[in-house]
Amino acid sequence: MNIVVSGGAGFIGSTLVDRLMASGHSVTVIDNLSGGDQSFLAHHRDSPRFRLVVEDVRRTGQLIAAMGPEIDLVFHLAANADIARGVEDPTLDFEHSIVATFSMLQAMRHHGIKKIFYTSGSGVYGDRGLTYFAESSGPLEPVSMYGASKLGAEGLVSAFAHLYDMQAWILRPANIIGPRATHGVVFDFMRRLKKDPTQLRILGDGKQSKAYLHVDDVIDAFLLVQRKAKGQINFFNLSSTSFITVNGIADLVIQGMGLSKVKRTHTAGKIGWKGDVPVIRLRNTRIAKLGWRAKYTSAAAVKATIAALLKDPRLDRLAAQ
Amino acid sequence: MNIVVSGGAGFIGSTLVDRLMASGHSVTVIDNLSGGDQSFLAHHRDSPRFRLVVEDVRRTGQLIAAMGPEIDLVFHLAANADIARGVEDPTLDFEHSIVATFSMLQAMRHHGIKKIFYTSGSGVYGDRGLTYFAESSGPLEPVSMYGASKLGAEGLVSAFAHLYDMQAWILRPANIIGPRATHGVVFDFMRRLKKDPTQLRILGDGKQSKAYLHVDDVIDAFLLVQRKAKGQINFFNLSSTSFITVNGIADLVIQGMGLSKVKRTHTAGKIGWKGDVPVIRLRNTRIAKLGWRAKYTSAAAVKATIAALLKDPRLDRLAAQ
Repeated sequence: MNIVVSGGAGFIGSTLVDRLMASGHSVTVIDNLSGGDQSFLAHHRDSPRFRLVVEDVRRTGQLIAAMGPEIDLVFHLAANADIARGVEDPTLDFEHSIVATFSMLQAMRHHGIKKIFYTSGSGVYGDRGLTYFAESSGPLEPVSMYGASKLGAEGLVSAFAHLYDMQAWILRPANIIGPRATHGVVFDFMRRLKKDPTQLRILGDGKQSKAYLHVDDVIDAFLLVQRKAKGQINFFNLSSTSFITVNGIADLVIQGMGLSKVKRTHTAGKIGWKGDVPVIRLRNTRIAKLGWRAKYTSAAAVKATIAALLKDPRLDRLAAQ
Repeated sequence: MNIVVSGGAGFIGSTLVDRLMASGHSVTVIDNLSGGDQSFLAHHRDSPRFRLVVEDVRRTGQLIAAMGPEIDLVFHLAANADIARGVEDPTLDFEHSIVATFSMLQAMRHHGIKKIFYTSGSGVYGDRGLTYFAESSGPLEPVSMYGASKLGAEGLVSAFAHLYDMQAWILRPANIIGPRATHGVVFDFMRRLKKDPTQLRILGDGKQSKAYLHVDDVIDAFLLVQRKAKGQINFFNLSSTSFITVNGIADLVIQGMGLSKVKRTHTAGKIGWKGDVPVIRLRNTRIAKLGWRAKYTSAAAVKATIAALLKDPRLDRLAAQ
């Protein structure tokens, strides 16, 4: 297939590109490199099936020029990835998630491209503690601009699918970690401990409890859902059934980095930042029915991420800054 | 109270302004007059409690200049009102519902304004025939840009409320009609029959069945909900328990205009236009618990609208065009 991956130079996007390339597809990555990293794609540079277009998805004209009616499927992953920054500047998520998605849909409509896979997120649900959210849960009350923008983008994907006869897959994943992570709690802890191995500041009380998915499990889910779900609009939660707290992650990071006597401090309050959802649970029976299981527990995903990042020169570079 | 009504020169907005002015509030209307009509507000022009700012809500800087920290409550009604046109040009709803709502929220945040009442719509739910949607129904699968934009705006309102300690009331009303209607099936039928009283073209098979609310009932609901619902974010459906078909409306219009022997034609298909939801049902038990009841049945609301529009010179002007 001819496949476009927006945000394809990012953590999740580039991992998806690896799998698509390995399956023999032709892949066009569209990425403004704001959060992504060209080095994640360096090994594809010489393939005639691979193309990198450095462009901002919000610029519809340029997007139309970069795409064409031969595209079979768009994985639309481009988004603001830094949830916490969205509090100080709500335009970040608004521009890079809502406006960018509208632009992508307009470009698809222009060329008559019919299939879109959209990575939404658990942030659409809001904050209801230990309540298990199903795909049919409502009302959706996002508490962050990240969640609000994912919800807005979902609506746009749904409307375009109905109005212009597209087919859509909308996934709402839990936290995703793994090699190439560019942000998030594991990455942040390691970066800070590289800089100062004697202390670790933890945002919130550390009891925040969530499911962490290994990116390899996530890409399995993407490809499975896209292949098997036949509805016009297909919503899927994506979560493992195991959870880990932020304090638990701190333990694993400190242990994985071979440190001891790290002084831990916690910031006030239960949440890491305004808009953080301290406890979130997603029902994943729908995707389980398609045959998907997480190969990594949350703890195993954290450990694998630590092991991969320990070998990653990016962390040393960031810690040296 | 000091109250802002965006879209306050429109059909619903100006009716709300009448009620707020009658209760002694100070009212600032912000309206770009694209869909509204200054004449709806002419009788307030000399009141020291009334101010009309002709401005587009998308222009955040101008909005900030027009508002101030003394504002107690914003009724945010400004939106693209023409659902069908949103199919040809999806930017209409995107700009005037999503971008405009983001702009309004940014202006509120700038001034520390804490209360927003947002008129969403039944369009957020999508198309599921006779299924009764509750406020907790999901997943939300809008089939029009109108519905998608309302959903996106709901998400933004929710996120801003949580991030910046605002309180929000989000109403999802059924079809609203009454004096000053500027579009919609009753208005369109009357306009076309004024032009040519011998025939009436009906979009779709005419069996579309929906609840129609009289605007006076709707304003009752707005004020009741805003006063009584104490949550941080308060979602409410708004619908009557009676319904009428498009063919039924045609009967009432033809009868109300004193016509006979009108030749009716139907366009192909069940729906009036792409994005139309032919049958929609909203559960309204939540708002009923607050004590709201529709005084008008759907048929009575249609009849009252016909009677009012028969006396309205706007229709003659439009028919003469």
